[in-house]
Amino acid sequence: MSVGDIYATDAQKLAVAAAEARRGAAEGGIPIGAALFAADGTLLGSGHNRRVQDDDAAMHAETNAFRNAGRQRSYRDTVMVTTLSPCWYCSGLVRQFGIGRVVVGDDQNFLGGQEWLAENGVEVSVLNDATLIGEMREFIAGHPVLWNEDIGEG
Amino acid sequence: MSVGDIYATDAQKLAVAAAEARRGAAEGGIPIGAALFAADGTLLGSGHNRRVQDDDAAMHAETNAFRNAGRQRSYRDTVMVTTLSPCWYCSGLVRQFGIGRVVVGDDQNFLGGQEWLAENGVEVSVLNDATLIGEMREFIAGHPVLWNEDIGEG
Repeated sequence: MSVGDIYATDAQKLAVAAAEARRGAAEGGIPIGAALFAADGTLLGSGHNRRVQDDDAAMHAETNAFRNAGRQRSYRDTVMVTTLSPCWYCSGLVRQFGIGRVVVGDDQNFLGGQEWLAENGVEVSVLNDATLIGEMREFIAGHPVLWNEDIGEG
Repeated sequence: MSVGDIYATDAQKLAVAAAEARRGAAEGGIPIGAALFAADGTLLGSGHNRRVQDDDAAMHAETNAFRNAGRQRSYRDTVMVTTLSPCWYCSGLVRQFGIGRVVVGDDQNFLGGQEWLAENGVEVSVLNDATLIGEMREFIAGHPVLWNEDIGEG
């Protein structure tokens, strides 16, 4: 799993995001991962939630993947793949930078702004991967205070 | 200008954000600044756009101020003050974390999601400071490619 490798299918792309989520879990963090791909499936960058690891409230999985993809001239043909439905913060990122497509691994444990994105011209694909749904459900049940902090539920 | 100091009025709060914008300009960066305050005007954190300085596309002024304020349990009573109308990315941040109030220094050079925030219960105050408007207008005119990159205009 390296920047520059090509991941042709949505399932392959989601596996990159899932690997990031599990890396975050192994670090003791919130297990959400994301990755940004070019139109041909080239991995531009990936990342995971870093709230716990860096004490950084601003680093959700999607923002971390976006950062790690570096400065791009256009995001129109890129695909943001995330293990969990993007919150308003990360949905705002997608809309502002004109990311053309979003692939969601799980919209059962959390529903962010994906419908708003679709209404505003973003192609949204929801895979609802049973393994990811189970892992996130288990995390939320075991860490309700941390989870609520991460989505701004006081 | 230090974390923990109290800034009572909106004008005083905006001056903190403006100082951040000018610090960014002095570093050769995009001159947008922001600061997050508690309900009583205590400065929690401030920051500025870091695209150029850190090659970091994810660090807008508001996200940088949010990061620098550290992990908070609740944002309901906080105030985000920004020199420029928050883009969708930063508006999404405000909505997701339930920041209660936004003070905007300039909505003439750029209009982001501030109306959407107001529709969703955020108190939005627009100061339209003539000096800030002039400084941002000059920056955009002098750096159109960089400016368009920062707002995702390809």
